[in-house]
Formats: sequence, C-alpha cells, structure tokens
Amino acid sequence: ELKNNIKKIWWKYFVQRSEYNVGIDSAIFMNKKVWEATKHASTFNDPLIDCKNCKMRYRADELIKDKIDFKNIDKNIINNLECPNCRKKNVFTDIRQFNMMFKLQFGVTGNNEIYLRPETAQGVFINFKNIQRSSRKKIPFGICNVGKSFRNEITPGNFIFRIREFEQLELEFFCEPNSDSKWFDFWKEKSFDFIKKLGINQKKIRFREHDKKELAFYSKKTIDIEYNFPNLGWGEILGVANRTDYDLKCHMDYSKESLEYLDPNTNKKYIPYCVETSMGLDRLILMILIDSYDEEKINNNDDDVRIVMHIKPSLAPYKAVILPLSKQLNIKAKEIFNFLLLNDISCIYDENGSIGKRYRRGDEIGIPYAITIDFDTLNDDCVTIRFRDSMKQIRMKITDISNFILNEIKKDD
Amino acid sequence: ELKNNIKKIWWKYFVQRSEYNVGIDSAIFMNKKVWEATKHASTFNDPLIDCKNCKMRYRADELIKDKIDFKNIDKNIINNLECPNCRKKNVFTDIRQFNMMFKLQFGVTGNNEIYLRPETAQGVFINFKNIQRSSRKKIPFGICNVGKSFRNEITPGNFIFRIREFEQLELEFFCEPNSDSKWFDFWKEKSFDFIKKLGINQKKIRFREHDKKELAFYSKKTIDIEYNFPNLGWGEILGVANRTDYDLKCHMDYSKESLEYLDPNTNKKYIPYCVETSMGLDRLILMILIDSYDEEKINNNDDDVRIVMHIKPSLAPYKAVILPLSKQLNIKAKEIFNFLLLNDISCIYDENGSIGKRYRRGDEIGIPYAITIDFDTLNDDCVTIRFRDSMKQIRMKITDISNFILNEIKKDD
Repeated sequence: ELKNNIKKIWWKYFVQRSEYNVGIDSAIFMNKKVWEATKHASTFNDPLIDCKNCKMRYRADELIKDKIDFKNIDKNIINNLECPNCRKKNVFTDIRQFNMMFKLQFGVTGNNEIYLRPETAQGVFINFKNIQRSSRKKIPFGICNVGKSFRNEITPGNFIFRIREFEQLELEFFCEPNSDSKWFDFWKEKSFDFIKKLGINQKKIRFREHDKKELAFYSKKTIDIEYNFPNLGWGEILGVANRTDYDLKCHMDYSKESLEYLDPNTNKKYIPYCVETSMGLDRLILMILIDSYDEEKINNNDDDVRIVMHIKPSLAPYKAVILPLSKQLNIKAKEIFNFLLLNDISCIYDENGSIGKRYRRGDEIGIPYAITIDFDTLNDDCVTIRFRDSMKQIRMKITDISNFILNEIKKDD
Repeated sequence: ELKNNIKKIWWKYFVQRSEYNVGIDSAIFMNKKVWEATKHASTFNDPLIDCKNCKMRYRADELIKDKIDFKNIDKNIINNLECPNCRKKNVFTDIRQFNMMFKLQFGVTGNNEIYLRPETAQGVFINFKNIQRSSRKKIPFGICNVGKSFRNEITPGNFIFRIREFEQLELEFFCEPNSDSKWFDFWKEKSFDFIKKLGINQKKIRFREHDKKELAFYSKKTIDIEYNFPNLGWGEILGVANRTDYDLKCHMDYSKESLEYLDPNTNKKYIPYCVETSMGLDRLILMILIDSYDEEKINNNDDDVRIVMHIKPSLAPYKAVILPLSKQLNIKAKEIFNFLLLNDISCIYDENGSIGKRYRRGDEIGIPYAITIDFDTLNDDCVTIRFRDSMKQIRMKITDISNFILNEIKKDD
C-alpha cells in the first residue's frame, strides 16, 4: 500500500496534474537492437574485480573510492589495494567490464536473444514518435514511464538500496535544443518539490552534481538528490540528467528512421533534447521508512518508549484503526469499519489487547488516526479520534469522520 | 491511463473495500526451487508440434481442437492432421512438452538459474506465513497480488489476447478445508460482479467450467468467465479455481517448513485450502476497448457516422476535454483547464479545428464530457457540457463542473 501510494502521488504530480506530460507503460522485454543502438549492450558495464586469494568479488569503483577511469587504470593502484575480506595485498585480478543487463532466450526456437530493460527510459525513446503523434502534443512536453527495471548488480545490498529487480519512476522531457538548461533547472526544482511533498526531513537531503569522470555516457549534466541514510551515508534517491539528443539520435542512426520534430510555429526541424528525472521507488520507500521511524520517550520516561512511524497521512498504508473498547461494542464498531471502507478510507479493525497496546500497535505501522468506540457511542453517535503524532484526542460525530480524514489526507496530497 | 484505472478499481474492489483481503507486491525474479516445489519446472508445458515440410510450429492443442491427453496421444491423430500453412498431411513431428517459463542467469558468476514468474500466485503462497503473521489476519482471508508475469507462449497473437509479457490481477483466498466450495461460489459471484462494474455488455459474457481433461494440474475445479470477441470467439477473461491445498502442501513438502495454520478458536491445525480468482489485465483492456467501440449513424444518415467509445467515466483515460470556441477565449479556457487538473480531473485541451470535429475527436477516445467555453462564458461564468453518449448539452456554472464530474465518476466506481 505504501508503494502504491507513492506511485499514485508521483503519477498525479508528474502526469495528471501537469499540463505538459503524458504517460506510457512500456514493455520490460526489449529487443536486442534497442540496446545496441544506445550502446548499452557495449557500455552499460560495471568494473568487476576478483581477489585471487579468497575469491571474493567486488565492484572496483566501490573498492577504489575515487573517480577514475576504470578502463585505463594504473596497474599500481590495483596492486596496492587490500582485499577487505582476507586483508591481503597484491591479490587482485585486472578489472573486467561486466555488463549488467539480463539476457534471455525468447520464443520457441530459443535463438532470439532479448534483454530485460535496465531502465524504463528507452521505452519512452523508442515510442517517442508514436506518442507524440497520437497524443498530438507539441514540444515542450514529457512522457512518464513507471515500472520494473532489472540490473545484474555485482554488489546488491544495503537492504533494498541496491537490488537487481527494482522499480523506476521516470520522466523524459523533450524540448528545443537550446532550452535544455532552462528545463533542467525546472525539473530539478519540481523533483525537489516532490521529495518535500513526501514529508522528508530536509536537513537530510542534499543536491550533488556529477563531475566529468562520473557522468554516464549519455549525459551532459547530472544532479542527484541524495538522502543521508544511517550506516550507508549519502545515497542517491533521484537523478536529474540532461541526456541531450543522445538517445533519439542513437535510435535514428541505427534504425534509419527520422525522429526529428517539425515545429508547427517556426517550421524548423530538429532532434529534441531530453531532460530526465529518474527516481528509484524502492529507495523512496527505504527513505520514507527510515525518515519517519522514531522511538519516543513518553513524558521523558526512559522505561516508556513508543515506536512510531511519522509517515504522512497521504502515504500511510492504513489511514485509521477501529478500536471497540469492549467486545460488546463490536457490532457498532464493525458498522463504522465497513462505512469507512466504502468511503475509500483504508482501515483495519483491532479488538485484541488493552486500548493502550492497541494504540501503540497502530503507531508502529504509522496509522495516523485511531478511532475508539466506547459505550457513550451507542447513545451520542460520537467516537474518540486519537492523533498518532500528538497523541491528542478529540470527540467527533460518526458521520463527520470520513470527511475529516479525507480532508486531512488531501492537505498534503 | 486506462490500464491504471482498471487496476485502481480492481484494487479498491478486492483489497481496500474488502474486510477479508490484503495486498502484496511480490518479486518477478523467483528462485528455481519455488518452481521445482510446485512442479511448474516439470509440468508447466504446452504441447509443441512442428511441420517437417514447411517448418511451421504449432501448439498441438490449438491444432487438434479437442480435449485429449497430449502426453499419450494416438499417433494416427497426428498423421491425419493437415498443416494449416502448407496444407500437407503426414508431415508432423511427435508432440514435445515445451516449458513456458523464461530462465535466466542471475548474479555475476552466471551459474545461478532463476525463472521469471509465469504467474503471480506463487508470490502469494511462498509469502503466506509471513503475511498471515504480520497482518495478524485470521482465516478466512485473502492475499491479492498484481503485476507482470511472463510465459514463453508458442503461439502469441490475436492482438494483446495472448502475449509473452502480460499483467495479472490475482486473489488467493485461504479458507478451512471444508469451506472451499462455499468460497468458490462467493468469489465466482464477486468476480462476475466486478466484470459488470466495468460496464461490459452482459450478453457477450458467459461462464464455462473446465472439464476433467482440461483442468490445470493444481486445480480441483475451474470456472472461466469468457467474453465473445469478434473474430476470436469466446475467450477467457478470468478464471476462478479451487487450488485446494496443492500449493501450500508443495512448498511445505519441498522446504520442510510447516505452513499449517492454527485456528485460535478451535485449536485445530490444518493446511488452508485456496480459492483463486485470476484475471488478465491486458485481456480486460482488449475486452473494454472492443465492447465500448461503436460506429453510430447520426440521424439515420449513412454519410454521417461517428466513432465513439462508450467507455465508463470511471475508466475513461480523460474525463473531460476543454474546448475554447475561439482563440480569443484561450486564457479563460486555460484557467478552467488548470482548475480541473488541480481538482484531479484528468482532461485535455483542444483548440484546433471546428467545434464539431473536436467533439468527434473526443468521442473517438471515449472522453465522456466536452466542456465548451464561448463568449457568454466571460459574462456569466458558465460553460456548456456536452455528453458523449447522448450528445445532449447542458449549461453549467464553472464552479460546479468539478463536483459534477467527480460525482458522475463515483456513481459507477
């Protein structure tokens, strides 16, 4: 539900409420030729290195924490490296380029090789002309693509920070060649604004520009937004990249099909430039979980600590928990439960344990509103709403709950 | 947007508004052992047959349109077959079992084989215990899983009816062993109700029960809901299957981990039975597109035919199209356009061509409401709303549009 909520808010922000952008859901299976055209098949590599002594395998760029050209590396740098596992020096192989794309045999004869996409972006580029024509969009406009991508990472890890199957939220924005810097700044700000919408502590966020050596082969300029993860340190959450006309040009050259755009106002023909903003959904989840997690002392008492997820109501998987104070109130409580479900307020029902324990259980999974049904409810048709963050309580008419919660959610949506 | 809308409505119906069900988003990459446990690795096959003369390849069950056991087929049946391509007889090879799962090399060493999931269901079964414990759900309850699955189909085709990469919407519902028939009927009715919600012509829908020879290896009883497609004929849209305790038992046997459930009321331990309802999202899309497409004569005039998609407002990708009657009204029209976008009404802006042409353009892609801004709008703050299906028009205050449309959408949501 958390994942769905992030996706929904992203889609609303970047597609549905945008006058510029449209969406596509492109295929995961992609023809080999796509990746030959963009040179992913030859250059989408990570530098791989092995310890000859203990057989441990590393990404050279993670071992040598320096921005260098791994294709022409000084042999002395490799010889001086110490293996983090067996603690020996002079044990490493040469660096080999390891391609991160997953290949598979497609079709019945088994001699058609295809790749699982390592990025959703190319699904946009190869469909650019199709989408532009069918949506009748004029440049500048953007195409959003959300879905799974797959990379055979050498060193997956850090919980869900680096995984081989992951989900991307990408916008490819097409503009006139000389307006790319302007739009780069525009989508950088928009992306930052989106992260703020998620309610993240801004002190833990920074911008970081890639230097020349670090830039991906398709990018003229890239700025990452990073989050300061505990243990892991600063890690990329999203990247804004100026991909120039690299991708469309590649596909044009390889397919011999024109991907030029004819400007209806100026009658000028050009290959559009592209500004990309690309986020990792799994990393957004990790950031939100970490950022909202708290252990709070109650009344400064060391022995009374509550675990609470201060997750925004719009993102919270469950918006409310329904708590009958006694089993005799179950019928009334179930009525309210079903009433809220039908009004599209995701909630759960909890009748086990003391009311204090049940409050804490809700706090732990970030439920913003706890609704208690007591014996007075049977007479006055009112319930008590307790707020997760402030732990304050107010009394409210049953008929008002659903609008109250929907409005609270809408505030930060 | 259509795909997203179907998914949203499905998720709301089967998860968020259900007191029984919770959701999961399980992985596409799945360990080989999962498929060995369930015997998919050995039995998830299609019968493959080749014409030795023209080299065309077929699914034997599509060629021999009869329910027979393809593993022990009479050689005479094969010899009597005529190849639909070269029209020769006595040309076919024996039938071979072709496994439909996609295999790939995982990790850096390249000797770890994994499969792309051929169904989302197993993601539920292997996570059953985890989900049951963390959600504190009591049986009966269900787990929903939505996402891409992959099958190396021998004969993909019929537009998007049979494709190698497709999306599934699945519910696996766990119940007590002797209540499976009752819950089978329950979810069969619910599934039918869901199809009705999509606004499909019920004359084109039928139930069809699988006979013994056709039943999948994991099922005790299966009933499909089929739609009568033009050209293609009756085709499966969804299947309700009684998977019994087959899957949990397989995983239990293979992993030596208990997946039994302890009923807290009766203290009885049992392996839950499972009723599945499984739909193909791409087939739902195909059905909706076909079912809502119409060519209508205007005033019984053969020369005036409009193409219209009578798609339900809740499913329509765009809810409204904004039409300024003159370019001088663009500022006012853009204001209304942006106001609707911010109120979460997906709409497009169209200023090109005659008003009649623009109406038709909206009809063609199923936009239910056309909003025309004319010169009176500048004085009375009213617009004309034209209804796609009836082509009737009413005048309405600008401030009322958004609530009017949201209410219309909610009616069939």
